Amino acid sequence: MNKILFRPEGQIAKVPDGTLLSEAITRAGILFNLPCGGQGRCGRCKVIVELGDFKRRETSRLSSIELEQGYALACQTTIHSDLQVFIPPQEAIVRKLPSEKAAAEIPTLSIVCDWQSNPTIRKFFLTIEPPSLSDNTTDFERLKRELARQHGIKDLAANLPMLRKLAGTLRESETKGQGWQVTAVLEMGTWVEEDALPRLVDLRPGDTTERRLAVAVDIGTTSNVVYLVDQASGQFVDSAAAYNAQISCGEDVISRILYARKEGGLQHLQRLVVQTINKLLQELAERNQIDLSEIYHMTVAGNTTMMHLFLALDPSFIRLEPYIPTVNHPLPVRASELGLHICPEATVDCLPGTGAYVGGDITAGVLSSEMFQAQELTLFIDVGTNGEIVLGNADWLIACACSAGPAFEGAGVRSGMRATVGAIEEAWINADTYESTCRVIGDVAPRGICGSGMISLLAEMFITGVVDKSGHLNRSLDTPRVRVGDHGPEYVVVWAKETQTRKEDIVLTEVDISNLIRAKGAIYAGFSVLTKSVGIDLADVEQVLIGGAFGQYIDIEKAIQIGLMPDMPWERFKYLGNTSVLGAFTALLCPDMRREAVEIAKKMTYLELSADNRFMEEFTSALFLPHTDTMSFPSVMRLLDKKATP
Amino acid sequence: MNKILFRPEGQIAKVPDGTLLSEAITRAGILFNLPCGGQGRCGRCKVIVELGDFKRRETSRLSSIELEQGYALACQTTIHSDLQVFIPPQEAIVRKLPSEKAAAEIPTLSIVCDWQSNPTIRKFFLTIEPPSLSDNTTDFERLKRELARQHGIKDLAANLPMLRKLAGTLRESETKGQGWQVTAVLEMGTWVEEDALPRLVDLRPGDTTERRLAVAVDIGTTSNVVYLVDQASGQFVDSAAAYNAQISCGEDVISRILYARKEGGLQHLQRLVVQTINKLLQELAERNQIDLSEIYHMTVAGNTTMMHLFLALDPSFIRLEPYIPTVNHPLPVRASELGLHICPEATVDCLPGTGAYVGGDITAGVLSSEMFQAQELTLFIDVGTNGEIVLGNADWLIACACSAGPAFEGAGVRSGMRATVGAIEEAWINADTYESTCRVIGDVAPRGICGSGMISLLAEMFITGVVDKSGHLNRSLDTPRVRVGDHGPEYVVVWAKETQTRKEDIVLTEVDISNLIRAKGAIYAGFSVLTKSVGIDLADVEQVLIGGAFGQYIDIEKAIQIGLMPDMPWERFKYLGNTSVLGAFTALLCPDMRREAVEIAKKMTYLELSADNRFMEEFTSALFLPHTDTMSFPSVMRLLDKKATP
Repeated sequence: MNKILFRPEGQIAKVPDGTLLSEAITRAGILFNLPCGGQGRCGRCKVIVELGDFKRRETSRLSSIELEQGYALACQTTIHSDLQVFIPPQEAIVRKLPSEKAAAEIPTLSIVCDWQSNPTIRKFFLTIEPPSLSDNTTDFERLKRELARQHGIKDLAANLPMLRKLAGTLRESETKGQGWQVTAVLEMGTWVEEDALPRLVDLRPGDTTERRLAVAVDIGTTSNVVYLVDQASGQFVDSAAAYNAQISCGEDVISRILYARKEGGLQHLQRLVVQTINKLLQELAERNQIDLSEIYHMTVAGNTTMMHLFLALDPSFIRLEPYIPTVNHPLPVRASELGLHICPEATVDCLPGTGAYVGGDITAGVLSSEMFQAQELTLFIDVGTNGEIVLGNADWLIACACSAGPAFEGAGVRSGMRATVGAIEEAWINADTYESTCRVIGDVAPRGICGSGMISLLAEMFITGVVDKSGHLNRSLDTPRVRVGDHGPEYVVVWAKETQTRKEDIVLTEVDISNLIRAKGAIYAGFSVLTKSVGIDLADVEQVLIGGAFGQYIDIEKAIQIGLMPDMPWERFKYLGNTSVLGAFTALLCPDMRREAVEIAKKMTYLELSADNRFMEEFTSALFLPHTDTMSFPSVMRLLDKKATP
Repeated sequence: MNKILFRPEGQIAKVPDGTLLSEAITRAGILFNLPCGGQGRCGRCKVIVELGDFKRRETSRLSSIELEQGYALACQTTIHSDLQVFIPPQEAIVRKLPSEKAAAEIPTLSIVCDWQSNPTIRKFFLTIEPPSLSDNTTDFERLKRELARQHGIKDLAANLPMLRKLAGTLRESETKGQGWQVTAVLEMGTWVEEDALPRLVDLRPGDTTERRLAVAVDIGTTSNVVYLVDQASGQFVDSAAAYNAQISCGEDVISRILYARKEGGLQHLQRLVVQTINKLLQELAERNQIDLSEIYHMTVAGNTTMMHLFLALDPSFIRLEPYIPTVNHPLPVRASELGLHICPEATVDCLPGTGAYVGGDITAGVLSSEMFQAQELTLFIDVGTNGEIVLGNADWLIACACSAGPAFEGAGVRSGMRATVGAIEEAWINADTYESTCRVIGDVAPRGICGSGMISLLAEMFITGVVDKSGHLNRSLDTPRVRVGDHGPEYVVVWAKETQTRKEDIVLTEVDISNLIRAKGAIYAGFSVLTKSVGIDLADVEQVLIGGAFGQYIDIEKAIQIGLMPDMPWERFKYLGNTSVLGAFTALLCPDMRREAVEIAKKMTYLELSADNRFMEEFTSALFLPHTDTMSFPSVMRLLDKKATP
């Protein structure tokens, strides 16, 4: 018998050689979760063996550093001597809310670029001799004269609102005995006309050249994110995020487009998203004690429909074949034209998109992910209501969008919900008992299941045999959790009494499963068509970059198990977080990168899948777990084989 | 005795040789006016001697053609045989209202210029292949592509309002089996940036290239005038005029500036003038059956204060020393920014001015009068509340403004009124009886005296000895019209019973006279300082161009008699009418002339009289009738001498 001492609390267990460490923990009376039921899949039963002999089964859940440090998965480790084992507190299963999450990140401009050269917005401090009878040049000409004399700015344009406050501001700026002292804020041409006349964006008394505030904005269908940036220092200052208030008019882009067709609908949607952004701006202003009217530049990324709604452009024809946006690359507009509460004359610049369903958010993703500079064959994916996929490298880019439907956004699924407090975002099913363990956002009693939770749950159900490869529930299993409910066969994820409302069981029905399989099938079909269209095998892809707010919560292993992601070594996958706002941030800081965005959008070939017969074929093939072509999912097949022959 | 037959009615008179024809007319019992009392000054007693011998005294009232045709002034013609005389109906003494007057004129582009080359606004008819799945370019890129293919337009900018209607208009333009047929209206750069990207101003279904409507506007302190123009044919179409609704907030620029300082005052003034222009536009639209939204270009001329109020720029510092406008050359703005009811994206372009009191209306005057091309030494004058004066030729220009005060506008004068129905605009005083005869606008009973009436009246009073050279009334005259009233000594122009209201006598008091003398003195002092400042004698001026709406009603002879205008041969004076709107019209039709306006404003040196000691000296010298320097008024002195020694 071996004596096992558990630290830090000092419990002891005595077990024979070869016993699983997880078994010993249970014998010692320690409360310890094995979310996946001891199959070594979830990696959540990590302990540190401090002294003694033990054997670990091979696992991808531990890094080489962890292995060196003595980490072991309790359910995959056998005991071969007396041991001293440290049980760390099991990871607090709390996912941060979008706003907390965004606030916690400190993004930096990672791309190598000369962001300080030729900035779009420049500030010039001027001391101006006030007029006299012998020098009675007008206010505007006087300002121009001094900009020319002191800073070599040859000419200047100014819109009416600036001219209207010119006389007052100049005289307000009079500093005792020193004349008029002002800071002129100039826009030095945009990508539309690089050599346009410098435009007076603001004029302030005193010297405000120290900082140059600007904002990068991601307008997602679900969430909006604002980054506050100082263009003078090139530093990220703060960020804020919130749900897009347009959600009240529809969850996905199609329902928003339909809403926009109503009388006044488009204007209402425009106001809602601007309200959301204004609220976030206000939050940033208060937290950082800044004056919003000192924000002189806004770069925006979003999908094509979101950009149309933001600018109140008619989105009708995005929805109807042949799917034509008004514009892919909106020209810069003034903040006052949209009702944004920053400097009224600030330029609001939307990043260019490629087509009706591959928008500026994807351009931003290709930019911030550095895919446009990649030598490796790269697959970029942004999963949401639509899965937008880009394949290529520094030399070429091809993109498509596959309508995954709203299943991953929690809509069209019986117990589905958005990824907010109370959503199950990860789940494990015990392979023996078919009991479930869930991780819930906000660490509260669950209310429903969000996208990542559904991927996780479906994978667990498939691996443990709760569903078969067609997505049908195995009703012969000895568990009350598989049953036929009012909506047909279903799996009970959480019993009503353990939910937040205590009213209804949280379930995943066969219909839900079918929707999820269609969603993942559409995305995988997108991968297949895209690679085949350029004569490449999906396996040749050297890296898979996962963008989008949702992407960062996808468990790759589970995503591969259900056939959502291609089966390739995990190290080829990289999570990039919200690549859309990161791209806007990059383009905001660096004019060269802003220009690069134009090149990316131009270079990107848009493959319209609805016009492509191959897509329907590939889609049909993908409507299985993980896929009809099992050869393409070797790791999943190995796992299933192992389970079949324990 | 000679027998005189008067046609067409056949009356007969018998008179001895040498009798004045006017005397014979009276004897024949014919009702015939001699407004100036038979002094040959007014020229209003024209008749035609068809047969017989007669002698005419020399007069400048008859042209050589009239002399050939037998015209004679009845009061200046003696009878030397039987005569047959035709009495034409005496000219209906009705001055047209500004609106009727403007409508009656048909201005043309008189300046030689290549107005058809490189117009600012161009129209392009396009047939566009609608999109398909295999050609899913966006609406905007598709439009750009066809503009490039069909018309060589390389790139295009478009503001939000245009992008917002793009999708709808293109699809609305679908013509059975012929695709999308539209007319794109483009602005091809303005004077600010000649090589700016072409900007989409409008897009209309079908072919509307036949005409290109535009408007030229004069914003006078008192009256506003709009010319409707077809830029495609270069033709004037129609015009309309009305009083500036801002009058309700003050008669002159200073009172308007003060009003603008009130809370919301500036915005109110801006709305009022825009309302006036919109009303005129509406009138033109109805009369000519046009759609105002097809007007794509507006050129505006006005004084510096009017331009500030029109654009809602702060005018405060125009009033205060050192008299600084915000801008002399406002950048073009969009019609929608001002609330003008033409195409919202139309450019509204204000002509450049030179200083606080020499505005775009004067530049327009120098342009339309062709003074900027003149070889002769030219004096241009626009008389109103301010007298703006320009001296120069094709090589140089110097300008000043002299605050004449509102006397000539009818304000600050007891019986003064604006030049509208009921205003006495011309008057004659009988040298023997001191009785007056008046010409009234609208041919109604008089209500008061307008500017031209006051000049006329003051000259008559001076020439007939009712006032002396200091402006004092001769109270020893044997007439009840000269009396001491409640407001001091005065001359009764019209007795109460003959006025419209029948309540009060229409009078000219010594205080009024003093105000008028100050007004004319200021203007004449302007002439003097301007000529002296460049070392020229006023007599060397080869032509005097009189612009401004008021200018065309000034009687040169009378104006010289009171010393308002320099004493030089009448043929050197030219009335040009409303040179401000004519200048706007010229600049609207011809881009070269628009550029010329910039050159004129740049070239013009502004002499600030309030900073010039010489002005006070000259002003003091000019406070006499006609002037202390009587040598400068030889013709007036001759007339006075003749009168003194009959």
